[in-house]
Amino acid sequence: MHRSKLLLVGGMLLGAAATAVYVNLPETNAMAQASAKPAEVISSKDISLDQAGAAVKAAVEKSKEINTKMDIAVVDAGGNLKAFVRMDGAWLGSIDIAQKKARTARYFDMNTGEIGKLSQPGGPLYNIEHSNGGLITFPGGVPIKAADGTIIGAIGVSGSTVENDHTVAAAGAAAIK
Amino acid sequence: MHRSKLLLVGGMLLGAAATAVYVNLPETNAMAQASAKPAEVISSKDISLDQAGAAVKAAVEKSKEINTKMDIAVVDAGGNLKAFVRMDGAWLGSIDIAQKKARTARYFDMNTGEIGKLSQPGGPLYNIEHSNGGLITFPGGVPIKAADGTIIGAIGVSGSTVENDHTVAAAGAAAIK
Amino acid sequence: MHRSKLLLVGGMLLGAAATAVYVNLPETNAMAQASAKPAEVISSKDISLDQAGAAVKAAVEKSKEINTKMDIAVVDAGGNLKAFVRMDGAWLGSIDIAQKKARTARYFDMNTGEIGKLSQPGGPLYNIEHSNGGLITFPGGVPIKAADGTIIGAIGVSGSTVENDHTVAAAGAAAIK
Amino acid sequence: MHRSKLLLVGGMLLGAAATAVYVNLPETNAMAQASAKPAEVISSKDISLDQAGAAVKAAVEKSKEINTKMDIAVVDAGGNLKAFVRMDGAWLGSIDIAQKKARTARYFDMNTGEIGKLSQPGGPLYNIEHSNGGLITFPGGVPIKAADGTIIGAIGVSGSTVENDHTVAAAGAAAIK
Repeated sequence: MHRSKLLLVGGMLLGAAATAVYVNLPETNAMAQASAKPAEVISSKDISLDQAGAAVKAAVEKSKEINTKMDIAVVDAGGNLKAFVRMDGAWLGSIDIAQKKARTARYFDMNTGEIGKLSQPGGPLYNIEHSNGGLITFPGGVPIKAADGTIIGAIGVSGSTVENDHTVAAAGAAAIK
Repeated sequence: MHRSKLLLVGGMLLGAAATAVYVNLPETNAMAQASAKPAEVISSKDISLDQAGAAVKAAVEKSKEINTKMDIAVVDAGGNLKAFVRMDGAWLGSIDIAQKKARTARYFDMNTGEIGKLSQPGGPLYNIEHSNGGLITFPGGVPIKAADGTIIGAIGVSGSTVENDHTVAAAGAAAIK
Repeated sequence: MHRSKLLLVGGMLLGAAATAVYVNLPETNAMAQASAKPAEVISSKDISLDQAGAAVKAAVEKSKEINTKMDIAVVDAGGNLKAFVRMDGAWLGSIDIAQKKARTARYFDMNTGEIGKLSQPGGPLYNIEHSNGGLITFPGGVPIKAADGTIIGAIGVSGSTVENDHTVAAAGAAAIK
Repeated sequence: MHRSKLLLVGGMLLGAAATAVYVNLPETNAMAQASAKPAEVISSKDISLDQAGAAVKAAVEKSKEINTKMDIAVVDAGGNLKAFVRMDGAWLGSIDIAQKKARTARYFDMNTGEIGKLSQPGGPLYNIEHSNGGLITFPGGVPIKAADGTIIGAIGVSGSTVENDHTVAAAGAAAIK
C-alpha cells in the first residue's frame, strides 16, 4: 500500500496507540482484568553504554576518515543522554546541537533531516523546533536500532556540513546491531 | 508491502556489522599509549582583558564615526563574557543580542551573517537559532584572532542596521593583532 | 533624626571624589601601551579528548570497584562539555547533576563540596546555587589540572552518596597528569 | 525616630508611592486634571557610560590593590547591563553572579548583603532568590547614586570572599558622585 510521506508521518505517530481501546483510561482495562491476571508490563530494550561507546567510536573514526571535527551525542530509548564526546577543535556550538539532534531523532523515531522537510514554512510541522526545549531538524540525527529493529536510542552529530554530520551519525548508528 | 524511504533509511543503517567493546570511548587511544606516556594537554590561547578592552574601544570609536549607538560584547575562547559596554542611548534589546552574536561567532568560528545565510527556510541549517539557548545569525558577530590566526574569542555588536553592526564589530576585531 | 545603618552605608559610598573619564574601561592600560606594542594574548592550556577519555575511564573503573553506577561528565577550561557517560542503570537525574558539578568545579576552581560549606543558611555564599543556570554545591565535582598545575577542566560525578561521588570524581581527575 | 530594620525595608519599598493617592488608577487622576494640564512625566537620572567606566576602573584598581581577580558588572537605573569586565584569571562562575548582584542591588535599592540577612530560613524574605530569574543576596552588590542621592544604577562584584567583593564594589560605586 502506498502512503504519502506526510500521512506516513502521521501514521507512525499514531502507531503506538493503534491497538489501544478508544477513550479507555488504562486502569479501567486493568481493573476489568484484575481477577484474571495482572496488567502486563511492556518488555523494552535500551541501549547499553557498551553499545553507545561503540557508536561513538565508529562515529569518531568516520569523522577522522572524512577529515572533520565533530561533537557526538548518544541518547537512550528514553531520550536521555547516554554518552557524549567533543573532538579536539570541534565547534562549541555543536555541543548543544549534537544533543538536540540525538534527542529529536529519538523523540520522533526518524532521521532529523526528515522532520526538517516537514517543518519548513507552509509545511505541516512548521516551527516544531519550538517544542521540547528546542529541536534540531536538519540532518545529523539518526535513530539507533537493535537487531530486531527496536529503536533503542539515537545518535546526533554536529560539527561540519549537514551532509557530513549525517554521514558520521549514520556510521555511528550502523555500529550497533 | 512497500516500505517507505524513511524506513529504508533505517534499514540501511542496520547493514554493517559491529562488535561492542567494553567502555569503548575514544580514550582507547590514550589507553593504548598509557604505558608510554600520558595523554597530552592542548596548548591554547585566550583573549586578555587588555585585548578585549582594545576591541571595545575600537568598536566604540567606529560606532561614533558612523553616528550609531551600539551594545558591544566580547567573549573569550570558551564563549564566556569578557567585556561589555552599552553606549548611552543604545537599544536595551541589544544587550542580549550583542552577547548572543559574540557567542554565536565563537561557537561556530565564523561571522554570524554567514550562519544566517544557511539558516533560512529551505537552507541546511534552518532554525539553528533554537539551539544553545538562542543564537543570533544575522550580521554583527565576528571572531577575534591572535596574530597566528588562532581564534581567541569573538565580538558581537547590536544597535543599528546589520550592516552597521557588522562594520563596528569588524573594526573591533581588527584592533587585535 | 537617626538614619538607619542601611542609609548610612549608602551615604558612605558617596564620600570619595571621582572624575569620570571618557570610555574609562581598563583598556586604558592597553591604550597607553598602544604605541609601544599591542595588548598581549593569554597563553593557556585546555583538556584534550584523550585526557577527558582517560579521566572518564578511571572514574568508571573506580565506580565499579566501589560497586556504584555513575553519571560522569568532563568539561574543558571554558566550562564546556567535553565528554559524558552514563553507566548502565545509573540515575537519570544525575545526567544534569554530573554536568552541573563539573561546571561548578571549573567555574570556581575548587571542589564543589567546598562551595557547599559556604552556601549553607547563614553562610557567606547562601543560595549561590541560583546563579549560572543552577549550580550543584555538594561533593562530586573536582577540577582537573595539567602537570604544571594549570586548571584545564573539571569532572563531575553523580549517582551514589556524595562521598562516593567525590571518590569517583577524584579518581577521574587523578588520571590526568 | 527608631525604626526596626524590617520595617525600614518595608518603608523603603513603599517610599516611591508615599505621595500617591490611595487606590487611584493613574489615568483617573490624569483624567480629572485633563482640562487643567497634562499629566506630568517623571524626571529621572541614569548612569552614563562614562560614569559606568569610571566605576569599573575604580573597581579594577581596588581589586588589584587587594590582590584579587574580579568580575565587575554595572547596571543602569532600569537594572539593565551597562558595562562588564572580567579580569584575567577571574572565576567563570562570577560572570553571572556579578551581574545578578548588580541587578539585585538596583532591584531593591540596597546592598545585596542587606537582603541576604532577611532571606535566611525563618526570615521575612526567605527564598527571595527564586524571583527575578535568580537573585544573589550575599555581599558584593552596591547601588550607585548621583550627587543628589538619586540611585542611577548599581555595581556588582564577584571573584573573591564576599568581604573583598563588597570592598571592590563599594570602591566602584564611590567613584561616581
